[in-house]
Amino acid sequence: MSSTPVPRLTLSRDGPEFSRLVAGTWRLGEWQWPLARRIAWIEACLELGITTFDHADIYGGYTVEALFGEALKARPDLRERIELVSKCGIRLVHPNRPEHRIKSYDTSRAHLEASVHASLKALGTERLDLLLIHRPDPLMDADEIASAFESLQRAGKVRHFGVSNFTPSQFALLDSRYRLVTNQIECSLLHLAPMLDGTLDQAQQLGRAPMIWSPLAGGRLLRGEDDSARQVQTTLTSLAAKYAVSASTLAHAWLLRHPARPLPIVGSSRLEGYQEAAAAFSVELERSDWYALWSASTGAPVP
Amino acid sequence: MSSTPVPRLTLSRDGPEFSRLVAGTWRLGEWQWPLARRIAWIEACLELGITTFDHADIYGGYTVEALFGEALKARPDLRERIELVSKCGIRLVHPNRPEHRIKSYDTSRAHLEASVHASLKALGTERLDLLLIHRPDPLMDADEIASAFESLQRAGKVRHFGVSNFTPSQFALLDSRYRLVTNQIECSLLHLAPMLDGTLDQAQQLGRAPMIWSPLAGGRLLRGEDDSARQVQTTLTSLAAKYAVSASTLAHAWLLRHPARPLPIVGSSRLEGYQEAAAAFSVELERSDWYALWSASTGAPVP
Amino acid sequence: MSSTPVPRLTLSRDGPEFSRLVAGTWRLGEWQWPLARRIAWIEACLELGITTFDHADIYGGYTVEALFGEALKARPDLRERIELVSKCGIRLVHPNRPEHRIKSYDTSRAHLEASVHASLKALGTERLDLLLIHRPDPLMDADEIASAFESLQRAGKVRHFGVSNFTPSQFALLDSRYRLVTNQIECSLLHLAPMLDGTLDQAQQLGRAPMIWSPLAGGRLLRGEDDSARQVQTTLTSLAAKYAVSASTLAHAWLLRHPARPLPIVGSSRLEGYQEAAAAFSVELERSDWYALWSASTGAPVP
Repeated sequence: MSSTPVPRLTLSRDGPEFSRLVAGTWRLGEWQWPLARRIAWIEACLELGITTFDHADIYGGYTVEALFGEALKARPDLRERIELVSKCGIRLVHPNRPEHRIKSYDTSRAHLEASVHASLKALGTERLDLLLIHRPDPLMDADEIASAFESLQRAGKVRHFGVSNFTPSQFALLDSRYRLVTNQIECSLLHLAPMLDGTLDQAQQLGRAPMIWSPLAGGRLLRGEDDSARQVQTTLTSLAAKYAVSASTLAHAWLLRHPARPLPIVGSSRLEGYQEAAAAFSVELERSDWYALWSASTGAPVP
Repeated sequence: MSSTPVPRLTLSRDGPEFSRLVAGTWRLGEWQWPLARRIAWIEACLELGITTFDHADIYGGYTVEALFGEALKARPDLRERIELVSKCGIRLVHPNRPEHRIKSYDTSRAHLEASVHASLKALGTERLDLLLIHRPDPLMDADEIASAFESLQRAGKVRHFGVSNFTPSQFALLDSRYRLVTNQIECSLLHLAPMLDGTLDQAQQLGRAPMIWSPLAGGRLLRGEDDSARQVQTTLTSLAAKYAVSASTLAHAWLLRHPARPLPIVGSSRLEGYQEAAAAFSVELERSDWYALWSASTGAPVP
Repeated sequence: MSSTPVPRLTLSRDGPEFSRLVAGTWRLGEWQWPLARRIAWIEACLELGITTFDHADIYGGYTVEALFGEALKARPDLRERIELVSKCGIRLVHPNRPEHRIKSYDTSRAHLEASVHASLKALGTERLDLLLIHRPDPLMDADEIASAFESLQRAGKVRHFGVSNFTPSQFALLDSRYRLVTNQIECSLLHLAPMLDGTLDQAQQLGRAPMIWSPLAGGRLLRGEDDSARQVQTTLTSLAAKYAVSASTLAHAWLLRHPARPLPIVGSSRLEGYQEAAAAFSVELERSDWYALWSASTGAPVP
């Protein structure tokens, strides 16, 4: 395991500085941890150099931010040592939001502001370091969103803004009205699409480091039993042995090698999950091995 | 039915001001109306606030512009109360053009100029308010088209220029040589593609309000019997009842809610067709209902 | 056959001037020609006005550049009468590169520089007129490539730079760091994709004339026995008779008609191959015939 701390990265010109690995809170609710364990988890992340925590209003059915907020309330010294990311724009059908009759998106100024206020309250903090529009909303009015962003920024409630799961044209549209610092997207050895469809080309061209969700394809990369997964696993296992690291470490090293400077989000209930990801920074992955993994995923040599 | 007139809209910076609903002349030939009825139809549109009329050289096998021109000749006072749009660039195989052996496109300077002159003569007017390239021509020479546009504009024959059915890259190409004011595209609850493929992202980013053909999917949206159509009809009918409007009104309200500011083209032989579309401006469609219709069309909740 | 020489073309603003037809060396190794015949081939091309020769480090399993270099060594007067293009960035699995265990891409500075040095040595020349990145490398670091390009340009080793087989977003990324003069792509009556997917729109918009590989679809256009090929052949044969040229000439005339100003690459062991391509410049292909061929390829009239 790596003993050097996770490096830090500035997402974009004038953007925030984050740890290159981000802790994901997506399943924090499922873990059903008592307060003390949640605090210990935050401290263990910090110990590794993981200071950035990725939230969304909807995680855990609108409950995760408050679970995290309890930890910050119990240990107010933690807030200044971390960066908080949250997301908004999805209206989930959930018992905690009985007024939602259908899953939908809402990027109106009123919803963005209400959502941020709820997130701040739940987290027990006065500002978010980064707010993301969670999904591309076909109804998004770029001027209205930009105006809401400006108000939130001026009021000191949110420092930076970005998006998630946006196509290049959606990113270009909103970025033309308000400078976005990142696009948080799915990418992994089992989801190469962003490396082929222009998403990472745009990220590199504009200099906006992408945040990466599901860098292990939700576990499928290590334990999936479908043909694609097994094919990648074979190469991953063989190369992990060569580099004397775990398959998980190698899968993260594969992502980190990309010049768009991706920031993988790790959401694990086990400390090893973070340690194995952090160890990826010590791996110097050869180009031909990077391509061996690429070709294992595509099922063919490069053209 | 709405009693307030249809609102007006400037298509783009320095672009023309049109009525937000446009009357389509596509099937004016099929209706086989005597002159008096054509005049009455124009007046009925004006009564509703629909002042913009959408033509193409090829409509009715190159006959519709002359049918409309007869009305303008009989009632010369009408010309100054309306905006005339026409299109060119398609060579149709038709008895009225026996020299065309194959359906093809022609965006040469000679063809554009000849086509405009023919349209002006048929319509009995001295200028078009807007000329569109009807279809993307793989052979389009952007410099040649721009030069033809400039000549036509300088000669006072055409005030503004746009395109129809262009992809974002085709639009960007021609727009880099001559400022386009609109892209007239197909879009409806049964044709969501432009909301997903970047077309409306570009329209919103550049501030060029799109004109929309087949906003009711050629009638399929109301009367289609395929599975997709039926699925949308069920939701449309149920929400129409909620808002106390017709399904046609609701389908137009759904389109009008888009922030790219689309201008639906209505081409109906029945006055009710225009009245029902115009009533859409009085509907305040809730976001969740917009998404209920979206999801009825895609067959799944949003991701 | 045409007796006027092949015209010349400047690829882009500040770009190199090439002959509008390019001689391809892809299969020069297969032809197994003695030195005298290679020299005669170069002279025959020059006689027709074809002065640009397209290489890649990997052609013939890393052997073709040296075969060509022998001709230049024997006839040093030829170098100043021709333009040399080469490519790099692919690592081929081949007995001549036993260290390559897997086919992969490498656009690192070290590889680009080493590859150029090897190409210069094999060709026996002091500079390339144009160097292309052979394939889009998902790992391409645009800043690193641009920096390598600058060094090579300053050292007088390469005059201009471009890419091959790049999508529009990949082209835009690298072009944002270093001005590219061309994108060498596949295009033919059996491969219309670049006319539909934005590739040629971008080429025309930015004014970068594309080089075209496989303009005859690797011979399939003339001799293929699949349905698509046969369908195009029927129309091609009939129109070739009309214009009193060969099918090959007409297929080249079809490409040359495109306003993006494509430069077809001809790689033939027969002199007739170059003569038939050169004859295309004397054909004035009518638009409707261009569309007859397009529709034969798509299998339907244009929309």
